[in-house]
Amino acid sequence: MALARTLEDGGFDALFLADVLGVYDVYGGSKDAAVADAAQIPVNEPTVLLPALAAVTSHLGFGVTVSTTYEQPYSLARRLSTLDHLTRGRVAWNIVTSYLDSAARNLGLGAQVPHDERYEIAEEYLEVCYRLWEGSWEDDAVVRSGGVYADPAKVHDIGHQGKYFSVPGPHLSEPSPQRTPVLFQAGASPRGVRFAARHAEAVFVSGPTPRAVRRSVDAIRAGVAEQGRDPRAVKIFTMLTPVVAETSEEAAAKLREYRSLVSVPVAFARFGGWTGVDLAELPVDEPLTYRDGDANRSALAAFTTAERAWTPRELAGFIGLGGRGPVVAGSGPEVADELERWVAEADVDGFNLAYVTTPGTFADFTRWVVPELRRRGRVPARPAEGTLRERLGGEGPRLAADHPGAAYRR
Amino acid sequence: MALARTLEDGGFDALFLADVLGVYDVYGGSKDAAVADAAQIPVNEPTVLLPALAAVTSHLGFGVTVSTTYEQPYSLARRLSTLDHLTRGRVAWNIVTSYLDSAARNLGLGAQVPHDERYEIAEEYLEVCYRLWEGSWEDDAVVRSGGVYADPAKVHDIGHQGKYFSVPGPHLSEPSPQRTPVLFQAGASPRGVRFAARHAEAVFVSGPTPRAVRRSVDAIRAGVAEQGRDPRAVKIFTMLTPVVAETSEEAAAKLREYRSLVSVPVAFARFGGWTGVDLAELPVDEPLTYRDGDANRSALAAFTTAERAWTPRELAGFIGLGGRGPVVAGSGPEVADELERWVAEADVDGFNLAYVTTPGTFADFTRWVVPELRRRGRVPARPAEGTLRERLGGEGPRLAADHPGAAYRR
Repeated sequence: MALARTLEDGGFDALFLADVLGVYDVYGGSKDAAVADAAQIPVNEPTVLLPALAAVTSHLGFGVTVSTTYEQPYSLARRLSTLDHLTRGRVAWNIVTSYLDSAARNLGLGAQVPHDERYEIAEEYLEVCYRLWEGSWEDDAVVRSGGVYADPAKVHDIGHQGKYFSVPGPHLSEPSPQRTPVLFQAGASPRGVRFAARHAEAVFVSGPTPRAVRRSVDAIRAGVAEQGRDPRAVKIFTMLTPVVAETSEEAAAKLREYRSLVSVPVAFARFGGWTGVDLAELPVDEPLTYRDGDANRSALAAFTTAERAWTPRELAGFIGLGGRGPVVAGSGPEVADELERWVAEADVDGFNLAYVTTPGTFADFTRWVVPELRRRGRVPARPAEGTLRERLGGEGPRLAADHPGAAYRR
Repeated sequence: MALARTLEDGGFDALFLADVLGVYDVYGGSKDAAVADAAQIPVNEPTVLLPALAAVTSHLGFGVTVSTTYEQPYSLARRLSTLDHLTRGRVAWNIVTSYLDSAARNLGLGAQVPHDERYEIAEEYLEVCYRLWEGSWEDDAVVRSGGVYADPAKVHDIGHQGKYFSVPGPHLSEPSPQRTPVLFQAGASPRGVRFAARHAEAVFVSGPTPRAVRRSVDAIRAGVAEQGRDPRAVKIFTMLTPVVAETSEEAAAKLREYRSLVSVPVAFARFGGWTGVDLAELPVDEPLTYRDGDANRSALAAFTTAERAWTPRELAGFIGLGGRGPVVAGSGPEVADELERWVAEADVDGFNLAYVTTPGTFADFTRWVVPELRRRGRVPARPAEGTLRERLGGEGPRLAADHPGAAYRR
């Protein structure tokens, strides 16, 4: 609750709620390191946290992570519509296809569905959702007069019959402010980038340097253009952990303290969860080697480039402070300078801020960096009105006409 | 939101959120009557409505309907734990196995799973949930000191391997105030009653007369005792629609007005949804006949007893005012008298109030009946403290020792 209020006061567009439906149990073949450090366990259900956070805020958007692999589109489409109603159009769906073997085992699949097939399923899943959100209820279906709530002639069965899903319809929710929630995506594999190019309205990327991120950004924007969509309309956010204080010296001291608290096993537990690679098996001070057959090699690739090959120990220091992006420490103006450099060099539209402490990291950022960004015209003085889609892209509240979901409108 | 506040102020124990994941499309083979009158469509997702309602109340409990047929227990158990955390122990789960063909078709099953097999699945589903809620995290697993969040030796994989589900575990949420939410059930079939006798802590029944309800109540209490549980510990609530005003005359006038607004097609649409019986095919003024082969005959049976066989038109008048229980109209003391008669003759512990208007029906009840019930010592002057389980039964916050879920504790 405190975090949501801090972010709203700080002029953030949205709070991003990650999720996993399994445990990080790759490192050393055990979940122990993850459990001890609360690394994604316990992890509560983000779709039911969201309404509680929405109740204490009025502008902040919410990006909620839900997989297309473990739930039927008919019920998830209704849940997301309900959230969009409750928040008056402040919801984004971060579409994931899930990557944890432990989740697949707990959700009745025995083993993971193969990576590329997960995306095939996700494509059809989105098609079903678009039909429900965009094509089932006409804009003037709800009448609410003369004893009639809705005109049955304007509430349509969708009649979807596909390879993975059969959904006759209709949608169970009446149209919400955005109909389709803002679509977020973060897939880094070639198939994931193709999926994002077609469906995403905002994409999360990550990498240690602007140059590494720029490659992803260029690939995504080119892919979006290939799909016949406006490549600048897709907003790209890169991961970054700010460590901020009033002065450079204080920020440096804070960073030193944080670094001294990083636990190598916990960092390895997170990395094992993300990539399926058990660093316990590798020498901690020898550079990581690139493994061609690895399905999740894209996660490893950023750390085994020609520019630099990281050792597991270096990786732990990097991951330990909040994720897969750089740590930027400094005073407010120094951090603002660095953010502007990333925007220019990596061609990103904004940042997905990771944290060392919560809400501490965000409170520091709001106190020292946001006023500086406002002075520079990088953050508006007051939050813009309207739905999340309107605030992110200026258009809305419905999907853009060049988005594939718009084709399902009547 | 207004409804939740009205109920809390009125001293109600809980707000019950029904749900269907399909449309009432049996009547005349079409969903039109249901759509026109908003009969369960639109229907938003109750698990995400609940946190918003909890945010504006502090004592009111929430009974949320979720089916065991369409979602994996691993993710639902986490969702309910999250809700129990968010509400500090105010959550009940109304366990349903789903009854709509239209829901089954939209959720990838093609057709319904046969009735009794749905209960077999539900039995194993509950077993998985008990293992996750009661058996995965020990009471002192969460440490939160010395850099350790939880002791890995006290967070257990559940290792469930059954006929329908395979869930190695562990549970993803740390223990919530009630661990297992209060378990509600409403199955009226013999198999449903057997399920309720084993698992339910509160049971919803319905019937037009105290005598009809008494038969259900006796069967449930006998079944509970057969399971080795205290038959009085299971609370039984019967459905009833109050129409209340300051005087008898005003209440009678209000009832006449409500009756004049009842739509026969809409009542038939609801009945078709509940029972699968299309009343459009039957003569409206001839008594209903009992159909032995009908899987849902239990819903029909109450209306085709030796005491009275209803015609479809009479049924519409009955259903049209709020459900499957009686309509009781009168002043506050008159309605309180009638409620006391039902408690005495049907041996119920309380009521599941249906409404004609919302929150109007509940506001009237709170204004005229609740003060009278408080005078008679039937409703406490102030809401009791504690979790929903403690407020309903006096014990808690955890499952009673004689409940089958308690066997999964470590």
